[in-house]
Amino acid sequence: MASSVTAELEPERIVRLEEDGPAVVLLDQRRLPDEVVDVRCATAAEVADAIRGMVVRGAPAIGIAAAYGLALAALRGDDLAEAERVLASSRPTAVNLPWALARMRDDPTPERARALHAREVERCRRMAAHAAELFRPGTRALTHCNAGGLATGGYGSAVGALRAAAERGLLERVLVDETRPLLQGSRLTAWELERAGIPHAVIADSAAGSLMARGEVDLVVTGADRIAANGDTANKIGTYSLAVLAAHHEIPFYVVAPTSTLDRTTPEGAAIPIEERDPAELTSRFPARNPAFDVTPAALIAAIVTEDGVKRAPYEVSLA
Amino acid sequence: MASSVTAELEPERIVRLEEDGPAVVLLDQRRLPDEVVDVRCATAAEVADAIRGMVVRGAPAIGIAAAYGLALAALRGDDLAEAERVLASSRPTAVNLPWALARMRDDPTPERARALHAREVERCRRMAAHAAELFRPGTRALTHCNAGGLATGGYGSAVGALRAAAERGLLERVLVDETRPLLQGSRLTAWELERAGIPHAVIADSAAGSLMARGEVDLVVTGADRIAANGDTANKIGTYSLAVLAAHHEIPFYVVAPTSTLDRTTPEGAAIPIEERDPAELTSRFPARNPAFDVTPAALIAAIVTEDGVKRAPYEVSLA
Repeated sequence: MASSVTAELEPERIVRLEEDGPAVVLLDQRRLPDEVVDVRCATAAEVADAIRGMVVRGAPAIGIAAAYGLALAALRGDDLAEAERVLASSRPTAVNLPWALARMRDDPTPERARALHAREVERCRRMAAHAAELFRPGTRALTHCNAGGLATGGYGSAVGALRAAAERGLLERVLVDETRPLLQGSRLTAWELERAGIPHAVIADSAAGSLMARGEVDLVVTGADRIAANGDTANKIGTYSLAVLAAHHEIPFYVVAPTSTLDRTTPEGAAIPIEERDPAELTSRFPARNPAFDVTPAALIAAIVTEDGVKRAPYEVSLA
Repeated sequence: MASSVTAELEPERIVRLEEDGPAVVLLDQRRLPDEVVDVRCATAAEVADAIRGMVVRGAPAIGIAAAYGLALAALRGDDLAEAERVLASSRPTAVNLPWALARMRDDPTPERARALHAREVERCRRMAAHAAELFRPGTRALTHCNAGGLATGGYGSAVGALRAAAERGLLERVLVDETRPLLQGSRLTAWELERAGIPHAVIADSAAGSLMARGEVDLVVTGADRIAANGDTANKIGTYSLAVLAAHHEIPFYVVAPTSTLDRTTPEGAAIPIEERDPAELTSRFPARNPAFDVTPAALIAAIVTEDGVKRAPYEVSLA
């Protein structure tokens, strides 16, 4: 089925809990696409290390991994408060991490974690069906980072929207920002699109504006790591630049994310913590700055698509 | 002198003609900063290959290298028309290449080539003195690619402006776009700024917009590969995006380039040929698009600084 537009990774291939062991088993996203290998985490602390080290990344996927991590701690009889603390502190920006841990707290069982995982993938399918309505025949889309099945535990948010648009015959091709420094676009999104049989081309992040100016982009679609109550959206560094460039070229900029990424307790984007990662991801020879995320103001976002539908401004109302 | 703000590479270290041999000797910019080694070109065709392969890059520097290449052909008694043809076709976007060859045609001697080289470096010093007037105490600048001494045969255009501003005590620090795919920012500009003792930090190209939004950029300054008669400016891919982002944040965007980069025969940017390079520079595993340059409309450029002074719109008049 690798050439079908619906081909996708099985959710349990991306992240699962093995009770025999026990262990949380993660597809190692650092080594894709060259190697398709797993990392086994025997403790919640090892799961937290894997999240921090980006073995697994993507806001929904790290929430799912953390849920399995807490279930793993319960199976082992470990201190659950300590396990939750370690998992919650692994990365700061994605709100799905505390969201998933809060949902596991009163029932940290494998069944609860698997249900949470299945519900996240189901949210993706519903988001994608809504988002596909934003595409017209021949749409040429541009995406950033990886908001694919790898990022959501299956199917994908922004990539899910691309899958659904392709199934409906509405998608001509996808430009994929390579997404420095860790190249989630040219390593992960291109790999998922290839498996899905969706035409695509990787570009340097800095080429997006020029290709918009040439009229080669009809819409931009990304995922999100945290969406504030007013619609301000934190996502991979570079998303904000894309949104400004899209506005300059009058190209709609869409965010596709599950409600588990909404943070109604954060009023606006300025309050979202932005992770600064090791400058050595860029260069170890010279001084460097490496913010991993940025915040796109709601005013630059044409619509936010959740599993509940296509939401437009004012987002305080539509997301409430 | 490595810690002085005026420390710079000797022009003949970057590119020179050795009559004993004879050979054009180029500092291999592909291998900097890890290795500081030369490439010897024994024929004009080898110089053209070195330009195409980016042993030497930067519009003024490839013009200078081509001038030495033609002098080399003359020393060897080779067919000069053929040598000029091969050199002129090595890369399409920089106008300095045909400009330098035209100036060598009636006197393809080492003396003429060395005079052309010396004049280009002198132009940089004059540009820098003009450009420094655009800086205020504590200026935090952002630059893209490498418009340093490596790109101009000595001193630099945009980096020359940064040197002059630093000498006058006006420069707080420089954010350096790493400049994918070939990393001229994190390899070459950071190396030049380190040698010059100018505080700097490398960033992902996609982080520039977010850092502008945070108020961390007072001006953007780049070089140019070709400037049309109306001021539209071709430069390294990503320059256009920076100019749009700078306009959105009301940050001045400056181009610093010698008059040898002006192409008065090209009325506007749409007529400038844009080189598409090997997609494998981005990824060899998936399809990719790799435009090497983009065109920034004159309307987004606050000033173009040449050796003749600070030019403002309307550029048809000020550049004439």
